Amino acid sequence: VILQHLVGHLESGLLAGKKVVITAGPTREAIDPVRYISNHSSGKMGFALAAAAAEAGATVTLIAGPVHLPTPERVQRVDVITARDMHTAAMEHTEGSDLFIGCAAVADYRPETIAESKIKKDPNSPDQTLDIKLVRNPDVVASVAAKDNRPFVIGFAAETHNVIEYAQDKLKRKKLDLIIANDVSDTSIGFNSEENAVTLVGADFEETLDKCSKRQLAGHLIELIAQQYNLQTSN
Amino acid sequence: VILQHLVGHLESGLLAGKKVVITAGPTREAIDPVRYISNHSSGKMGFALAAAAAEAGATVTLIAGPVHLPTPERVQRVDVITARDMHTAAMEHTEGSDLFIGCAAVADYRPETIAESKIKKDPNSPDQTLDIKLVRNPDVVASVAAKDNRPFVIGFAAETHNVIEYAQDKLKRKKLDLIIANDVSDTSIGFNSEENAVTLVGADFEETLDKCSKRQLAGHLIELIAQQYNLQTSN
Repeated sequence: VILQHLVGHLESGLLAGKKVVITAGPTREAIDPVRYISNHSSGKMGFALAAAAAEAGATVTLIAGPVHLPTPERVQRVDVITARDMHTAAMEHTEGSDLFIGCAAVADYRPETIAESKIKKDPNSPDQTLDIKLVRNPDVVASVAAKDNRPFVIGFAAETHNVIEYAQDKLKRKKLDLIIANDVSDTSIGFNSEENAVTLVGADFEETLDKCSKRQLAGHLIELIAQQYNLQTSN
Repeated sequence: VILQHLVGHLESGLLAGKKVVITAGPTREAIDPVRYISNHSSGKMGFALAAAAAEAGATVTLIAGPVHLPTPERVQRVDVITARDMHTAAMEHTEGSDLFIGCAAVADYRPETIAESKIKKDPNSPDQTLDIKLVRNPDVVASVAAKDNRPFVIGFAAETHNVIEYAQDKLKRKKLDLIIANDVSDTSIGFNSEENAVTLVGADFEETLDKCSKRQLAGHLIELIAQQYNLQTSN
């Protein structure tokens, strides 16, 4: 009876039968064996979205950068470190998928070269400087959106100012269906915080979700995303 | 009776009545509000040393970079982010201390300037590069060792090659009493691993501790460190 109830719940879920791929967390780009460049991201928002999508009946693949979080129930997890690893995993797992949510804080840049052994500082030169040349990483969400038979693509814009404006620009430029705009200049939300507040932005759509726990917010977002997805695919 | 037993245990501990300051974890150096440079370090080794020192009867202050670890029992924890914060905290808390163990993977360099808002990439230039100029951070363990009325100072050398040689050089150069040499080229030990194997190196002393859990290793290290400390201070 419990199993029937569960199956009934999943089949009736807003994303029942849908294949959803979500990226979460930061990526890390090595400078040498001990140093790296990364982005602030606890992964909590992406993990909460994965849990909410699974609860809505979807088959969920979560591509996670290095984070300290347990895998949500009924979610397949793929662990990666670098932006290039995440790009490869996203391109592979979005084959035949229905929705893609790019929630990871992917490093835009990586060091041009990775030193094979630890870069030593000169102990006699306290004024020593070091120049690191960074090159661009592949753009994960734009690459998924550029695929043939692309899924419905939702991006993420973490910005410190002109948040909605940047989000709208990114939506058009990367050919996304929706974008989750997040003002990270407010330290009470985003990044390592337990709470968040975002605006979901589409071409003819904008809805702001007030501050609440990332778990609650994820539930609301999955509902809104499923509605917009159903609107588009039913046309 | 339990309290008496506990007090008796502490008073009889190898570090009973000693004030010990330990640094642990990485530091983070901001590039802009979303990007940073850091070092691989889970903080596990430093936290295990703090727990072992407290068990040996010491009053322990643990200066921790950003890590995901619970504070060991009877340990006072001070959280910091950057190398400069850790330097300030270490200089302050080592006043009147008996032993200092610099176990943190302090970032040697930080970006010369921290951008106030997120550095935007040019969407039309996938070949765009970015140069980051890094400047030297203060040396926490060398600064503590250079203090008047300095404590007994134990450093840490995480190296990928010539491990013992670098450790001996660092011991002399930074005027440390002991140094814990850790070969981090072996991925089964160090960094995020649960196990570690190290060599404790002094001016006329060298003892290798075989691979075991970081908790066990910390217990052995605290014993050896207490012995060497007692040898030096009884002279």
